[in-house]
Amino acid sequence: MTASILELGGRARAAARRLALTSTADKDAALSTAADLLLDRADDVLAANAADIRQAEQAGAGATSIDRLRLNASRIEAMAGGLRKVAALPDPVGEILDGWRRPNGLRIHRVRVPLGVVGIIYENRPNVTSDAAGLCLKSGNAAFLRGSSAAIGSNSAIAAVLREGFAKAGLPEDSLVLVSDTSRESVIEFMRLRGVIDCLIPRGGPALIQAVLDSATVPFVIDGDGNCHVYVDAGADLDLALRILVNAKTQRPGVCNAAESLLVHQAVAGKFLAMAAGGLEGVELLGDDRARDIVGLERMGAATDADFSQEFLALKMSVAVVDDLDGAIEHIRRHGSGHTEAIVTSDLAAADRFTTEVDAAVVMVNASTRFTDGEEFGFGAEIGISTQKLHARGPMGLRELTTYKYVIHGEGQIRT
Amino acid sequence: MTASILELGGRARAAARRLALTSTADKDAALSTAADLLLDRADDVLAANAADIRQAEQAGAGATSIDRLRLNASRIEAMAGGLRKVAALPDPVGEILDGWRRPNGLRIHRVRVPLGVVGIIYENRPNVTSDAAGLCLKSGNAAFLRGSSAAIGSNSAIAAVLREGFAKAGLPEDSLVLVSDTSRESVIEFMRLRGVIDCLIPRGGPALIQAVLDSATVPFVIDGDGNCHVYVDAGADLDLALRILVNAKTQRPGVCNAAESLLVHQAVAGKFLAMAAGGLEGVELLGDDRARDIVGLERMGAATDADFSQEFLALKMSVAVVDDLDGAIEHIRRHGSGHTEAIVTSDLAAADRFTTEVDAAVVMVNASTRFTDGEEFGFGAEIGISTQKLHARGPMGLRELTTYKYVIHGEGQIRT
Repeated sequence: MTASILELGGRARAAARRLALTSTADKDAALSTAADLLLDRADDVLAANAADIRQAEQAGAGATSIDRLRLNASRIEAMAGGLRKVAALPDPVGEILDGWRRPNGLRIHRVRVPLGVVGIIYENRPNVTSDAAGLCLKSGNAAFLRGSSAAIGSNSAIAAVLREGFAKAGLPEDSLVLVSDTSRESVIEFMRLRGVIDCLIPRGGPALIQAVLDSATVPFVIDGDGNCHVYVDAGADLDLALRILVNAKTQRPGVCNAAESLLVHQAVAGKFLAMAAGGLEGVELLGDDRARDIVGLERMGAATDADFSQEFLALKMSVAVVDDLDGAIEHIRRHGSGHTEAIVTSDLAAADRFTTEVDAAVVMVNASTRFTDGEEFGFGAEIGISTQKLHARGPMGLRELTTYKYVIHGEGQIRT
Repeated sequence: MTASILELGGRARAAARRLALTSTADKDAALSTAADLLLDRADDVLAANAADIRQAEQAGAGATSIDRLRLNASRIEAMAGGLRKVAALPDPVGEILDGWRRPNGLRIHRVRVPLGVVGIIYENRPNVTSDAAGLCLKSGNAAFLRGSSAAIGSNSAIAAVLREGFAKAGLPEDSLVLVSDTSRESVIEFMRLRGVIDCLIPRGGPALIQAVLDSATVPFVIDGDGNCHVYVDAGADLDLALRILVNAKTQRPGVCNAAESLLVHQAVAGKFLAMAAGGLEGVELLGDDRARDIVGLERMGAATDADFSQEFLALKMSVAVVDDLDGAIEHIRRHGSGHTEAIVTSDLAAADRFTTEVDAAVVMVNASTRFTDGEEFGFGAEIGISTQKLHARGPMGLRELTTYKYVIHGEGQIRT
């Protein structure tokens, strides 16, 4: 008999109540115990993973899917290392965000507290099971996880080990609850568990995001696309611009903070686009007419409007020449996804206008878009990157897995 | 020809882009100009309101609905006063929330910025048109409003005056956009304008909230029910407890921060319930067996489980005797709505446990639940009280109508 999703959620809620009151030392000890156990039981996890992989291969899954699914000794070591690293981070819970006294003597404190139950829906990548459980536990939340059917064996094996580790350290094993029913119906039921899930973080492709928008009744934070631009201004140091552009596009093209589109001020377009066409060797370029005139129709195909809105996640880039800073800002407004936008310039006024007027989670001046990342921000770890404006924007670390409550002390005050 | 909702949303978005860059002084001047104009044009607004009232009366609306709908000179003065008061509040936009330097030299600032377009769906009460527009404008947001059909004449008249006032002061008239189509279809379309509305705040009854949960694709903050408890602990000063209880229940019973349920520690139940039954004269009491044994079956009816979860919004209160502090916390966990919970006690350990373990937006020690209010918190005004945990919890003022962006400055940093 498998438990219903509602029943599983109830267990996570009960665990969350205990976790909210658990000391930092006890949480850190549980993370460390779980990390030890994960290494001890690596063979069990790898055996379960091998079975998932065999099944995926038989089902004809592609090489990328298989690679995402595959664990090995070093990936398991990385998972254990991740748990230890989270244990070493400062505990966000209990921070006094602010506080003041009212004229009537009431003393108001705003205190950081856990969210409660954090629901995560994810596709493949079994390491998310461990990473998410670690971040949730450290921030005092229960992790209620729903992975993909292809990874269910691996996820279950990892979850079993971590639950045992948490219990061994005296914390509730339900600090991590994995849903084993991976049917389509169950995922919809999961995202409608209002009163059970305090925050849902879907991590997956556009179909999952659309399902959440259409069906979720629980509060959620969207970890969305990154159609990131690099804008090379008239006042840019062009060598520095090229270095940033090449890094932003090619250092890891398959991730959301990679640049997808290059905008160049017309005053430097002739010189810079020639540099870019050389520096981006191996990158397919799709440009507007002005860019193609400069670079040549051979080197640069024609970009459609859809290309400019596309997150390629590949060695492919759209290119446009803009009249001026306003043109760049307007282009980003039309095509950007609110993730990360960068300007390269030595002009202070242009930098200020760009950072003020561009509406995105992160705006960079003279730095690669690739820096939008919890680790690079110094958060120690991240659970995702929010492209929405409510609750959290940009990289989400431990702090973004919390909420606050007001604690008010009086001496009998009443309203009149 | 009326504009489509999508078209109206586009106008609000364009205005929001300008408002995000508007100085505090210009926003304050626009609020003041709009307040002046509202007083000048009071007769137009009152005429439109009289027509709405006539229609509501013909349609057989109840006295409470009619009262909510009705404007008079002093209500219009209050609306104008509200706009001036918001103008006098500090501008939240531009605050540096935090900032740090990374080892690679990147300088990161987290800067408070407007949300963009704030959508509000509300029922009756035409003053919301003005109150919401003022709070949104001050926080740099465009207000995209969808009121009820019964108030459409009043709302349209108020919106027209405010739009004219904003334009007169040099700001976009579309800083306030009111949807005139009040059909059921239009409200659903409104809450699905993803990419147009950055934050939706529904203000209305359970049917509206359910429609938002079922249909909204835009991010939203729920302004939910308040099933607020007053718990009188064994260590309470009973005179002080009575004063708080009577205030919390009776000072204004129809609002969300009024107390709906009394919990009393068994050690003081005999004495305190007798005091409460007297002090709450005119309040219908529904209790559990232990409470009824003390107070008498005449004075106190039997409470069902549903009564304990009910927000009465009336001179009616549920009462339970609990074994101890744990019993009170458990009762609140089962029946509370996460709004405001109060303990009356002189025992420091009990106060600490209550504030730590009770999961609500606001926990009070020795003060009336009625203090959960933006004005009482010192926010100057409020757009609602959030009972969810994401983004904002408790009273929402200007600060809660903002988000943040990361602004990062480098000197050519790339990732390796």
